[in-house]
Amino acid sequence: MIYITRRERFNAAHRLFRSDYTDDQNMEVFGKCSNPNWHGHNYELFVTVKGEIDEKTGFLVNLKTLSKIIRKHAISRLDHKNINIEVDFMQGKLASTENLAVGIWNEIKQWVDTLNIELHCVKIMESENNYVEYFGS
Amino acid sequence: MIYITRRERFNAAHRLFRSDYTDDQNMEVFGKCSNPNWHGHNYELFVTVKGEIDEKTGFLVNLKTLSKIIRKHAISRLDHKNINIEVDFMQGKLASTENLAVGIWNEIKQWVDTLNIELHCVKIMESENNYVEYFGS
Amino acid sequence: MIYITRRERFNAAHRLFRSDYTDDQNMEVFGKCSNPNWHGHNYELFVTVKGEIDEKTGFLVNLKTLSKIIRKHAISRLDHKNINIEVDFMQGKLASTENLAVGIWNEIKQWVDTLNIELHCVKIMESENNYVEYFGS
Amino acid sequence: MIYITRRERFNAAHRLFRSDYTDDQNMEVFGKCSNPNWHGHNYELFVTVKGEIDEKTGFLVNLKTLSKIIRKHAISRLDHKNINIEVDFMQGKLASTENLAVGIWNEIKQWVDTLNIELHCVKIMESENNYVEYFGS
Amino acid sequence: MIYITRRERFNAAHRLFRSDYTDDQNMEVFGKCSNPNWHGHNYELFVTVKGEIDEKTGFLVNLKTLSKIIRKHAISRLDHKNINIEVDFMQGKLASTENLAVGIWNEIKQWVDTLNIELHCVKIMESENNYVEYFGS
Amino acid sequence: MIYITRRERFNAAHRLFRSDYTDDQNMEVFGKCSNPNWHGHNYELFVTVKGEIDEKTGFLVNLKTLSKIIRKHAISRLDHKNINIEVDFMQGKLASTENLAVGIWNEIKQWVDTLNIELHCVKIMESENNYVEYFGS
Repeated sequence: MIYITRRERFNAAHRLFRSDYTDDQNMEVFGKCSNPNWHGHNYELFVTVKGEIDEKTGFLVNLKTLSKIIRKHAISRLDHKNINIEVDFMQGKLASTENLAVGIWNEIKQWVDTLNIELHCVKIMESENNYVEYFGS
Repeated sequence: MIYITRRERFNAAHRLFRSDYTDDQNMEVFGKCSNPNWHGHNYELFVTVKGEIDEKTGFLVNLKTLSKIIRKHAISRLDHKNINIEVDFMQGKLASTENLAVGIWNEIKQWVDTLNIELHCVKIMESENNYVEYFGS
Repeated sequence: MIYITRRERFNAAHRLFRSDYTDDQNMEVFGKCSNPNWHGHNYELFVTVKGEIDEKTGFLVNLKTLSKIIRKHAISRLDHKNINIEVDFMQGKLASTENLAVGIWNEIKQWVDTLNIELHCVKIMESENNYVEYFGS
Repeated sequence: MIYITRRERFNAAHRLFRSDYTDDQNMEVFGKCSNPNWHGHNYELFVTVKGEIDEKTGFLVNLKTLSKIIRKHAISRLDHKNINIEVDFMQGKLASTENLAVGIWNEIKQWVDTLNIELHCVKIMESENNYVEYFGS
Repeated sequence: MIYITRRERFNAAHRLFRSDYTDDQNMEVFGKCSNPNWHGHNYELFVTVKGEIDEKTGFLVNLKTLSKIIRKHAISRLDHKNINIEVDFMQGKLASTENLAVGIWNEIKQWVDTLNIELHCVKIMESENNYVEYFGS
Repeated sequence: MIYITRRERFNAAHRLFRSDYTDDQNMEVFGKCSNPNWHGHNYELFVTVKGEIDEKTGFLVNLKTLSKIIRKHAISRLDHKNINIEVDFMQGKLASTENLAVGIWNEIKQWVDTLNIELHCVKIMESENNYVEYFGS
């Protein structure tokens, strides 16, 4: 069993808030992350997959193929977007890094499965001081 | 003459667009950076000052004092803000990294001057692949 | 189950030595890290916690709350200190990165518990070439 | 149980190809990594070991000793080498990062064992966007 | 006058040697970098240009345009190549980082000129410990 | 004219204080950096030299030779040392990063001169947020 990780990046705007809260209540719970005019981040996404090495290629998986899946099903829908408004799989959810990691897992899982490898971890780095990891359950 | 650089960070949303262009025209010139729903970045700001070492302290300048000036006159007005809407010194300007560097220079210059040191460079890193430097003229 | 990691930093002096060894014996076992006049590091501390996402906030935990606990119970007692002389929870122990990781775990564990999340890992990076991880047992 | 990781670096040339494929077939499967004239990387190797802290030293293991083993049994055989041609433990295998991680594990395992600690992970970073981890089975 | 820098990356193999030296002589002068079987690096290329901000766009230059020039006239000719054998503008020269920086300057200068901005610096980072800068004369 | 930079690293303890101040006065001026029990840093030293490329080698200078000079005349005297007590060229000076940069310049200048290249810059990075540069006058 070998693990391989691919990093991809996206820049996006978001806001942490509940629509059933007033701006003051949102400020109390979410701080300046609740700014109604949005703020944003350079997000780094790390996708780790695992499985057996293919003796014919020496690869667990061709990273170009994995990268294409991540770009098509995650990055292209997130990059230079507003996560609250424009990202369909985040609708009805708080735009936290935690929910984003789970959301990306759910979007790419079925496509990674087609490669006959197992999705192991989705990690999102929101800043040099914070990151979230989700292992699927 | 010695040079010292202080790094501070801020996260902000912005959009590159001209209000006298249609969305299509903006897309043509500014690409996905013109998304009307905004996107954002983790910006890194590097402020370099220069001057003579103070023999009494061994410092060019107390970095806590310099940091306070940068935070008060730049970071606090930019962090978790929308650069196009909320940053007064960027009003009427395109929210490019270039204009941001010049804008920050103009905001902090007079306060750095009070420390009897010279502002040398304002550098903004917008992503790991791009940065802008402004030396004041 | 989701994992979130917060990075905090501290600068400290330390010395690796046994008081029942001569300076020569200490040099033989601990090398230049046993310098009786101390040396120091920029330490990076990574605290990973795990648990379920709170549906009301989208958070595993508010990172500001977690950060306050780490700063109060670890960073403020370590930053700009001499680990051998001034850090109470390291008294009577060798000031190694290994013992430091265990010590920080023991100091913050009870406070992390009050947040209804589980402390998963304390990681300390002593240099770009070395880091230690402790998972609590 | 504590975990400690040591980073070492090496620069090497390699080529991904099968000798039973034509250059065109290799290009189709391995892309530009199959260039018959070679290309190369700055590889970063992270070796993680685990075990109990030695009360006499405060160490899991003296990192100088671990570093010597890694340098002698892995780095010195890889650094400034052609992985396909010159690295004996990679002969007859595709020079992929996956196979390299397994190969290094197999070369250093017995020497790490002599330190009475357990080899936990061999991680190889081939670029800022890709890394492989092997845990021994 | 504003300065903007774009980073691009390439992986390549090379060898430092003189064909009028024996292998032993090459080893004496160039060390293990003279390995006849090649070695390689992850090179980082930083191109800095300078000029006036275009009031219509807020840009010194559209970074997509600059990036295309760098990729077409430098990266595509270097990435996954053998610098000694395959890079036409390095023929007849020692494949040192110094010569590479000058070579890239000469290749991209005329194309940067067409953008009505000035090429200021070509910087190549060969490892985390070494980099070369060339300012054109 | 080409510029080449070599990075070397050292870990050291220091204290910012004046012996003619009380501990309270030192705390007022130097903050927690004046802790009488010392603190420390992972310092990064960047030495930039400039000159003409040697046509015979393709080098400005053999980096191994430059590295040896930096290690002998700077790193070996600073690494795992107490800057205030043990570093002869810092005696009688405040142990600030500014003075350290000037001190290192003065120590290595004459040895760099023997290589027929010019010392251009000594840069010291004390933390990820601060660095000092000295150009010799």
